[in-house]
Amino acid sequence: MSDLAKTPQPPYYAVIFTSERTAGDKGYGRMADLMVELASQQPGFLGVESARDAGGLGITVSYWSSLEAIRAWREHALHQTAQEKGRTDWYERYALRVSKVERDAFFEM
Amino acid sequence: MSDLAKTPQPPYYAVIFTSERTAGDKGYGRMADLMVELASQQPGFLGVESARDAGGLGITVSYWSSLEAIRAWREHALHQTAQEKGRTDWYERYALRVSKVERDAFFEM
Repeated sequence: MSDLAKTPQPPYYAVIFTSERTAGDKGYGRMADLMVELASQQPGFLGVESARDAGGLGITVSYWSSLEAIRAWREHALHQTAQEKGRTDWYERYALRVSKVERDAFFEM
Repeated sequence: MSDLAKTPQPPYYAVIFTSERTAGDKGYGRMADLMVELASQQPGFLGVESARDAGGLGITVSYWSSLEAIRAWREHALHQTAQEKGRTDWYERYALRVSKVERDAFFEM
């Protein structure tokens, strides 16, 4: 999976997307990879971190330079298609939170 | 693992903790469970979501009512012990980001 994101000095924005998947892949894996690739090319994209637990809970945090960048990504046509498929096919439930990062700290052994 | 957190109306705070573990448990699992239990009892705690990927990347997001609540938890004696063990034994690297949630959305199939 992804590594830790190399984000700039705060402030910047974090979109915290927590989800529980339905059973079976149903094209999810391929679309998830595509969305990460596509998001990375958007203006204002700063990085992404993603983990899915064996128990089924997934957390993806994407980092952005501004609320405008987040809005533009949300309205991207292919992302809209993926969001729609998410609701009909892929997710039992999800929570999406838009937050402003005010402080950060990094550690490396 | 944990379910989706039932957080109140924004604004509230999210602490995004992303980490890569060292090899072996070394008492990590037991301490992680204890920290979640202990955090849940702190004033201002609103919920926690956690996932660790098969690839080794872990993301834990805890939600808090205020920066003061986050500070008090950071300075909790037993949590300080865990943080110290984290740096000496458990984590290759981590990133910790304190953010203010401004907007959220929930979906259930």
